Amino acid sequence: MARIALDAMGGDFAPHAPVAGALHALKELGPEHTIQLVGRTEVVRAQLDELMAGDLAHLRGVSDRLEVVEAPEVIGMTDKPSAGLRGKPDSSMIVGIRMHAEGRSDAFVSAGNTGAQMAASTLLLRLHAGLTRPAIATLFPTAREPIVVLDSGANVDCSSQELVQFARLGSVYAEYMLGREHPVVGLLSIGEEAGKGNIAVKEANQLLRNGAAGINFQGNVEGRDLPLGESGRGSFDVVVCDGFVGNVLLKFYEGIAPMVVGMIGEHTGLDRAQLDSAIKRLDYSEYGGAPLLGVRGVSIISHGSSSARAIKNAVHVAVRAVESRLSDHVGQRLASAMPTTTPGIVPAAGPQAAGGAA
Amino acid sequence: MARIALDAMGGDFAPHAPVAGALHALKELGPEHTIQLVGRTEVVRAQLDELMAGDLAHLRGVSDRLEVVEAPEVIGMTDKPSAGLRGKPDSSMIVGIRMHAEGRSDAFVSAGNTGAQMAASTLLLRLHAGLTRPAIATLFPTAREPIVVLDSGANVDCSSQELVQFARLGSVYAEYMLGREHPVVGLLSIGEEAGKGNIAVKEANQLLRNGAAGINFQGNVEGRDLPLGESGRGSFDVVVCDGFVGNVLLKFYEGIAPMVVGMIGEHTGLDRAQLDSAIKRLDYSEYGGAPLLGVRGVSIISHGSSSARAIKNAVHVAVRAVESRLSDHVGQRLASAMPTTTPGIVPAAGPQAAGGAA
Repeated sequence: MARIALDAMGGDFAPHAPVAGALHALKELGPEHTIQLVGRTEVVRAQLDELMAGDLAHLRGVSDRLEVVEAPEVIGMTDKPSAGLRGKPDSSMIVGIRMHAEGRSDAFVSAGNTGAQMAASTLLLRLHAGLTRPAIATLFPTAREPIVVLDSGANVDCSSQELVQFARLGSVYAEYMLGREHPVVGLLSIGEEAGKGNIAVKEANQLLRNGAAGINFQGNVEGRDLPLGESGRGSFDVVVCDGFVGNVLLKFYEGIAPMVVGMIGEHTGLDRAQLDSAIKRLDYSEYGGAPLLGVRGVSIISHGSSSARAIKNAVHVAVRAVESRLSDHVGQRLASAMPTTTPGIVPAAGPQAAGGAA
Repeated sequence: MARIALDAMGGDFAPHAPVAGALHALKELGPEHTIQLVGRTEVVRAQLDELMAGDLAHLRGVSDRLEVVEAPEVIGMTDKPSAGLRGKPDSSMIVGIRMHAEGRSDAFVSAGNTGAQMAASTLLLRLHAGLTRPAIATLFPTAREPIVVLDSGANVDCSSQELVQFARLGSVYAEYMLGREHPVVGLLSIGEEAGKGNIAVKEANQLLRNGAAGINFQGNVEGRDLPLGESGRGSFDVVVCDGFVGNVLLKFYEGIAPMVVGMIGEHTGLDRAQLDSAIKRLDYSEYGGAPLLGVRGVSIISHGSSSARAIKNAVHVAVRAVESRLSDHVGQRLASAMPTTTPGIVPAAGPQAAGGAA
């Protein structure tokens, strides 16, 4: 059973996309799941009425699992991240996250202002012990299974220790959300050798090679390995990078597939619909939303230009995160990686003891 | 007239690719151009004889513009960059760069060890005044004309001042090699707003916005703008980023197009040759080589897996760089951007004077 608080005012196509997405999601989800549409009641109700009188009349049956929660303010897409909590405490974003923080919802989903969602999620839900910052985990389609790339935008200047934490967070995500056993982690760099990369990446490689608890480290991977989902050392499930690199790559990926399709369409005369269907797997709306990993709870970040379909898929991601107890597993993994401080047990010096503890 | 020193031992397919590439290039170039094949004389001569007795017999006529220069050693692809000058002074790489440094060649081209080529080019050719490091300028195909992306691998941790220098170097490249008048420069970041990015990028944005001499700055561009060659503010010719980001992007680009083509082939049943021909424009071997900008001279870096065709195109790039006097223009542009120190002329204080000086 999951109660999903959904920001009805967030994203370029709100309130239509969130409201329609909620109806589609409830249709697909089991009857034990409910959605709380958070926003200006009159606006949300008008949108609901319009859809249920028209295009989505066939989904009327799900509306008893839909609640509308009043939030008179809206955080704009270009508002400063800090503006939310301080300036608009009654916005749909803040009201929704607070519902989750206070236990009245099991998860929060928004296609609104990402910076505000990160800031408010971190402050209201708080981070698991051992973390300095949360990370956005995005699925990248590959020639094989999708891989988890993190961070993809929450942290722009990262230390090597933070990169190691991303490796840990991504491993938990791959295991519990994607069902990968002992997920393999690659560190994004500019050469496969351990000595290649910028300062933070070279240090992180060393920390990871020395054996970091709960991380199955493969070594460095390069840009060309990402679309394949494998490097010369085999396939991987998780790729770690700082949020600047991850965000640039994610947006480049979004732009490049339509460009290639356009070139092929022009050259071959194949019709666009057929080509689009061929690369459907590369469409980010198929994946819906990226969890903000590290917060105590479930905060799903959707693309600003999310369609109803993307929002529907983001709700599915939220339900999966709740049902798999993703956040609990993150907390446990982080706790088990922290140095033991039990009184009376002093960690022995020497490589053997250290290896055993890891 | 250009004399091009070509590393006959560099790259995954040496000596075949460089030797065959040289023959093809000479066939296409005017009779005033010559190539110096630098490597183990017996190996290079054997390869030449084999090609001219077989597949490339029709190119025999160009061999009088081909010289073989002895260099008994070879720098391996995985040798450390510093190993070249210190450990293998008689390698094809070092001998070729020294020929250029001593005025016996007008340019140097190699598909060999990139790190060694950068280090030796910087030390033997030296940098233009005002630079701390050279940058690799790579052409990225877009839906419009190709754009120049730099740095794409020479510098992994960059200061904001270095990013500004890359903007200047890229502008000269776009103007003299691509024929773009007043080339437009974008700064790669994670949002179009000036305040988005990591520390170095935010600082660089401010420096560029305040008016840096010889740079037509558009503002930040995002990953999704690259394949289009334009942002919300219009088209651009040059994109500036640090070498870590640039290298990851470049290699990602190399990997993603074949993946998309593979998916479309599987789904539509179109044959691979037809699809490959549709995206020929995305094939890096079409572009051949990336100049190491900032050195006093012409040092062209080719992909390690360069084919004969890629090497041929790299030679064309070298000839164009010589004929357009690219390096001289770089030196002049850098000099004109340096603070005036003429005695008696003290720059006036105040924003108007500063604006006028820029």
